[in-house]
Amino acid sequence: MPQLGLLHGRAWAVLFGQLRRPPGAVCIRAVHSHSQVAEAALATQLKPHQEKSNFIIKTPKGTRDLSPQQMVVREKILDMVVSCFKRHGAKGLDTPAFELKEMLTEKYGEDSGLIYDLKDQGGELLSLRYDLTVPFARYLAMNKVKKMKRYHVGKVWRRESPTIVQGRYREFCQCDFDIAGQFDPMIPDAECLKIMCEILSGLQLGDFLIKVNDRRILDGIFAVCGVPESKFHAICSSVDKLDKMSWKGVRHEMVAKKGLAAEVADRIGDYVQCQGGVSLVKQMFQDPRLSQNKQALEGLGDLKLLFEYLTLFGIAEKISFDLSLARGLDYYTGVIYEAVLLQTPAHAEEEPLNVGSVAAGGRYDGLVGMFDPKGHNVPCVGLSIGVERIFSIVEQRMKTFGEKIRTTETQVFVATPQKNFLQERLKLIAELWDAGIKAELMYKNNPKLLTQLHYCENMGIPLVVIIGEQELAEGVIKLRSVASREEVAITRENLVAEIQKRLSES
Amino acid sequence: MPQLGLLHGRAWAVLFGQLRRPPGAVCIRAVHSHSQVAEAALATQLKPHQEKSNFIIKTPKGTRDLSPQQMVVREKILDMVVSCFKRHGAKGLDTPAFELKEMLTEKYGEDSGLIYDLKDQGGELLSLRYDLTVPFARYLAMNKVKKMKRYHVGKVWRRESPTIVQGRYREFCQCDFDIAGQFDPMIPDAECLKIMCEILSGLQLGDFLIKVNDRRILDGIFAVCGVPESKFHAICSSVDKLDKMSWKGVRHEMVAKKGLAAEVADRIGDYVQCQGGVSLVKQMFQDPRLSQNKQALEGLGDLKLLFEYLTLFGIAEKISFDLSLARGLDYYTGVIYEAVLLQTPAHAEEEPLNVGSVAAGGRYDGLVGMFDPKGHNVPCVGLSIGVERIFSIVEQRMKTFGEKIRTTETQVFVATPQKNFLQERLKLIAELWDAGIKAELMYKNNPKLLTQLHYCENMGIPLVVIIGEQELAEGVIKLRSVASREEVAITRENLVAEIQKRLSES
Repeated sequence: MPQLGLLHGRAWAVLFGQLRRPPGAVCIRAVHSHSQVAEAALATQLKPHQEKSNFIIKTPKGTRDLSPQQMVVREKILDMVVSCFKRHGAKGLDTPAFELKEMLTEKYGEDSGLIYDLKDQGGELLSLRYDLTVPFARYLAMNKVKKMKRYHVGKVWRRESPTIVQGRYREFCQCDFDIAGQFDPMIPDAECLKIMCEILSGLQLGDFLIKVNDRRILDGIFAVCGVPESKFHAICSSVDKLDKMSWKGVRHEMVAKKGLAAEVADRIGDYVQCQGGVSLVKQMFQDPRLSQNKQALEGLGDLKLLFEYLTLFGIAEKISFDLSLARGLDYYTGVIYEAVLLQTPAHAEEEPLNVGSVAAGGRYDGLVGMFDPKGHNVPCVGLSIGVERIFSIVEQRMKTFGEKIRTTETQVFVATPQKNFLQERLKLIAELWDAGIKAELMYKNNPKLLTQLHYCENMGIPLVVIIGEQELAEGVIKLRSVASREEVAITRENLVAEIQKRLSES
Repeated sequence: MPQLGLLHGRAWAVLFGQLRRPPGAVCIRAVHSHSQVAEAALATQLKPHQEKSNFIIKTPKGTRDLSPQQMVVREKILDMVVSCFKRHGAKGLDTPAFELKEMLTEKYGEDSGLIYDLKDQGGELLSLRYDLTVPFARYLAMNKVKKMKRYHVGKVWRRESPTIVQGRYREFCQCDFDIAGQFDPMIPDAECLKIMCEILSGLQLGDFLIKVNDRRILDGIFAVCGVPESKFHAICSSVDKLDKMSWKGVRHEMVAKKGLAAEVADRIGDYVQCQGGVSLVKQMFQDPRLSQNKQALEGLGDLKLLFEYLTLFGIAEKISFDLSLARGLDYYTGVIYEAVLLQTPAHAEEEPLNVGSVAAGGRYDGLVGMFDPKGHNVPCVGLSIGVERIFSIVEQRMKTFGEKIRTTETQVFVATPQKNFLQERLKLIAELWDAGIKAELMYKNNPKLLTQLHYCENMGIPLVVIIGEQELAEGVIKLRSVASREEVAITRENLVAEIQKRLSES
């Protein structure tokens, strides 16, 4: 299987190779009445909070701080994702956190109510971005860019009811890769699926499957089954629920809530319960009804070509043609896809964790034209990695194994067993910093040696340099390995070289 | 001088070593009336924008997209800054883009009007964060963390009138490093100044100076000069203008606008026009009036100790005790500092560029207590790097030299001189990707060889692998160096190893 080049089979070995005892940070949320806070603040130089009842120290609903432990995991995962995007020749791009409100209008269908608006404080009406795709399309149109392969890692905001257990938040990070431009069919689309495979394999999250469908095939199915065109959107969003609901439930919704004739629903059911490989594509070509629909034939033709390319990429066995895949967003126009984890990570003793889809995307050939003054379109295809869910899985795994992670990269600690050695410690640590060595010391005039050594053990710092009266008299420094507790005396001139040698060996 | 370990003297050589011809992306802002957009959008599958006059495709006022070129420069600068923070043992932390509105209340004095509020859409009242310091203090109080050394790189938002030429935006990036905890005096403060020196030296922005003062000394000066305590804040913000205004102008403001007696203003003028090194600290200790003020003496004592540590760190000559430095924000309680560039970067032919301060910070011992229910304080000291201004300087320098930067990292391009070779190209590029090699191909069934080679030259891709009928028949691949145009035939089995060898040599 393809794996992220940087990591090959060792992704988690590398990640967990740094795991250590917890550095002792505890996370308890403090919830207090305002009166306490007000009283307390009076004791400080600063003014107290405004008088208000129910003052609570917290982050906004659906958001959270990321602790140093979480930041380390996040940084490693994002590095892997971005290195894959760069391996495929993508350029970086950044857009503002908010857009003019009208830029986001009419792009998200029913989900538009989830957009965060900014308060009208005079001037423009603004909204926080809801995804990275619409700002990308706006960028292309605004700068008249006709061709671009870009990645973008950034936060987006959605006012959803947060179901935090599944790793869904109102503020979350997306990692997007998109290819814009007029090209021969399905070559960029196949590359997007290849990228999803490389990332999911590289992250070693367990087995996965990528469901593929095409909006034109879905529309064709609705047409040949007899759905009135005005109901396409409503029926499409019912189909979208098939990953969480049985066909029986979905059929009921179609008939009872959306007013579809029962026999029409049954015809749809015959299609959307199908899934398979390239053979299912061929079978649909033979379907007496579907083969009469021009749109469906276009979609099927593209999927056939797509499977051909996926076979050349060696990933066809990871792909399932799934007629129930519908995808929520309005802007898709062709191929759509969604990656799902098939089981929890390899170890049987872990709690099962339902994480749903971890990556998704598709083709949106009409979005740039909505921004372009002459309606000129730039065809686009892309994908988004649901990194928050991936973070949840990794955190869950670490919790299960009681594993903790190193939150600093400090290589050397500068210690002393004696009083009044601050000056010597400061001179020494500046030498290390200036040589590019990651070093810390205790911000105390007279720290205890044991406290200093315990700190190194707790924080996973591998080396300690010790300076005291004897060392100063002899012109040496003691270099101690925290793991083996071995100490050697080294001349001051050779210290930096010796530390660099030890660090390069470890 | 201390330099960033990763880069030593080669920072810009490394950065500009990647400079190449422009990849052709043009940035023209599209500004059009809505009627055109509406007509155009009708041609697409998607709905047009709502009817509204003056529809303009743009980013919100004071914000901007970052192009791939800008992202490369930014990534390199941020990498250098973060590696310095990590070298000093800092942990990463992230906080949400918005906070409960009341968390930001009463923290920023006159600047509070610049805070972006979110619209009340039901639920909590929220504001975009204004800096990274207040969220850090909120995090410490909320989690009862008494000791922490953290860095945070993130966007903040301020509704200022954007003066874009100086690199000031309404959305901008800050890089913060802070040390929280009760320690022996001035050791963490000295480390903050050391970090500022390492970063500014490492980035090679030219000569710089760090102005240092102490809020307690300023308050002491105001007291002994006869300023009524109720006017301390107003007079302090007048003093803060001395870097942009003459003493005469500031004196006028104090007397005419803020109602200070002329002789009181003159007494203040005698102090705040002083600047110097540690000798000025000693001189102020002897000052007959100031030496009678307890607060001022505490501040002077700390500054004396600070200079001692800065001398041990080898950076004392970069520091100036400047009695005019006041700093705007309300929350500082002790030492304050601000780094200014003394001249434009080394090259005489460049346009002079006024960039003001590029880093600043100070001690804020009362902020955490504002959030803590019992008012317990956690003393803090920190710094913020003004990376946007640094980006501006670098961009200005690149513009002056007409230099462009590589926006992708692609190492190998997969090309063919023949028609109908897409399948072979796809198989070959998948092999390269799976081996971790950064590779691209043209998304065309039958691209022209010259087009493919031109693309490599334009994008700075060093190697091309060429596959055609002859190569396929002989079981080889041609490997071409774009720079030398030399081609060699290599067996398919050896291709990956040969590419990796060449890339490691270059």
